[in-house]
Amino acid sequence: MIVANGTSPFLDPMFWYVTEQTSGTFEGSFAIVSKDGSLDVVTGTLEATAAKKGKGNVHIYQTRDERSQILMDILKGCGRIGIRGPSITYGVSEHIKKLTGAELVDVSENVSKVIMVKDADEISEIRKACSISSDVASRIPDMLRNDITEKEMAFRIDSSLRELGGDGNSFETIAAFGGNSAEPHHRPTEYMIKKGDTALCDFGTKYGMYCSDLTRTVFFGEPKATLRRAYQVVLKAKEAGMNEMYDGAPAKNADIAARNVIDESEFKGMFIHSFGHGLGMNIHEGPWASKTSEDTLKKGMVVSAEPGIYMPGVGGIRIEDTVLITKNGCEALTEFDESYTIVFTR
Amino acid sequence: MIVANGTSPFLDPMFWYVTEQTSGTFEGSFAIVSKDGSLDVVTGTLEATAAKKGKGNVHIYQTRDERSQILMDILKGCGRIGIRGPSITYGVSEHIKKLTGAELVDVSENVSKVIMVKDADEISEIRKACSISSDVASRIPDMLRNDITEKEMAFRIDSSLRELGGDGNSFETIAAFGGNSAEPHHRPTEYMIKKGDTALCDFGTKYGMYCSDLTRTVFFGEPKATLRRAYQVVLKAKEAGMNEMYDGAPAKNADIAARNVIDESEFKGMFIHSFGHGLGMNIHEGPWASKTSEDTLKKGMVVSAEPGIYMPGVGGIRIEDTVLITKNGCEALTEFDESYTIVFTR
Repeated sequence: MIVANGTSPFLDPMFWYVTEQTSGTFEGSFAIVSKDGSLDVVTGTLEATAAKKGKGNVHIYQTRDERSQILMDILKGCGRIGIRGPSITYGVSEHIKKLTGAELVDVSENVSKVIMVKDADEISEIRKACSISSDVASRIPDMLRNDITEKEMAFRIDSSLRELGGDGNSFETIAAFGGNSAEPHHRPTEYMIKKGDTALCDFGTKYGMYCSDLTRTVFFGEPKATLRRAYQVVLKAKEAGMNEMYDGAPAKNADIAARNVIDESEFKGMFIHSFGHGLGMNIHEGPWASKTSEDTLKKGMVVSAEPGIYMPGVGGIRIEDTVLITKNGCEALTEFDESYTIVFTR
Repeated sequence: MIVANGTSPFLDPMFWYVTEQTSGTFEGSFAIVSKDGSLDVVTGTLEATAAKKGKGNVHIYQTRDERSQILMDILKGCGRIGIRGPSITYGVSEHIKKLTGAELVDVSENVSKVIMVKDADEISEIRKACSISSDVASRIPDMLRNDITEKEMAFRIDSSLRELGGDGNSFETIAAFGGNSAEPHHRPTEYMIKKGDTALCDFGTKYGMYCSDLTRTVFFGEPKATLRRAYQVVLKAKEAGMNEMYDGAPAKNADIAARNVIDESEFKGMFIHSFGHGLGMNIHEGPWASKTSEDTLKKGMVVSAEPGIYMPGVGGIRIEDTVLITKNGCEALTEFDESYTIVFTR
């Protein structure tokens, strides 16, 4: 299998997974895992020093021609080369095909099954990332004040994540106020918070190479009664979903259970995305907790639990925890404290 | 041509270029530009509201099957579909092939030629991004203090970028002290600065969707004489390179001129990367100012000028400006102030 990094941001986290590197950008670099378990790492002079701190036989190239030669030498005799379809570019895959004449086989499903289940070291990194996010979540009510904009809010969240030891965002922070929160993937704007607005904050940090993911929705002063009711329904939906999360459970059951709670309420049809996704080095990876998923939850998987209700023009509610699947149930790695639901404004 | 976003971070900035969106993540979304100049945007329910703020005929899908159907309808009758090889994944390209039976043609070179030359609006966004970076650069000497670690330094830089109105990093900030600065792409660690260390800081911000890129190297107290000399050589190399940057000049000339300065000095062979790269919505795009480049500089291109000298175990010096190509020469969009070269420690 060849793991190939293109130009930033087209970098495959799998490169760090197999090399156990904790640093570097490694653009235009390759990690090749052979059947006998050996690992070859091909990288440029820019990362020569960094590469030697990781695993594998390191090969340094100066020019593109040298790189091609090294790759051909390592891959000589390979009739079939595994690649990861969703994280290798078309350009690089064509290049490998031309260099080797080999057949490319998309092994991403197989690899996904391996990386979905986390070992103790991985869980410990994710746990730390989640603990940092939870600490920041507990500061949201204090961060909210008159005149704060979505952009400022996102900035304060990101700064707090870093200040508390995070290694950078696991994705671009969403801070969505009022009507904007009805867009699940809203990008922060100059919109200034108003009394009665929802403040939906969805963020995560990396710790080492691992991600956390958390969403909290806080009311800035007393909201419309319908938003209050929606909040309670989302909370119930999250609990219903989490009750279906345990070793051996079909991943879709969590989505179905949460969706039932919402669809049986006055907010029928307003949960417009899936219940959850796996996370690890990737912020989005398997297993997929969607209603059509065929994945099965296993002990050691880390999955988001994030139902939501979205009312265009009014606002959205989403509450999300990062959850570890255990033998008999699941454990939320992020901390939810309902006392942070409302900020009383003067 | 189809512009396709995979799962984050496999998102193509070109999607925002053609849709003129200023928000959204748009995972699993497609923008299709037809010969007649029309634009179709295919996205999920998550970004429905955002999509309608941009250009094009917006098609919303609920399920993957619906998405496939919409794509097939739009692409019906297309025998050849342009894609961007370096920014579409293998997985998505295979999916499009299967759906349409069309031949995929990598048009990335053609597209690159278009996006390399920036219009007035784009230059204005880049100028603003550069101005924010320059302001932060001027704060580096104040940020440096005893006991600061590389990670803290990167954090302070990133916070300042956001505080001054930046829209997030254009790449992961490099803060490399002492021997670590000999690695051009060093990732910040817990290493604490020592007297005499170099502090190499390479960072950029986005403003709107556009990037800046800047590197400053500052001495924390009096460094080894060799580092002082290397600094002057890098500065001379940057000037020599920039003298070769003007409308109509071969892009490789800047690299050759800068490399000559370094290779004629005692630091021969220690400039281990290229002189520069274009930037815009992508932090790395054409033209390439490398010694083997076949690109020609044109008025309106924005290119980094970043020679460096790297001495393993001792330290590295890199000085980088973001430069706009003009009719008769070039203009540095980032501000370089040599008075920030050294911090006098107590």
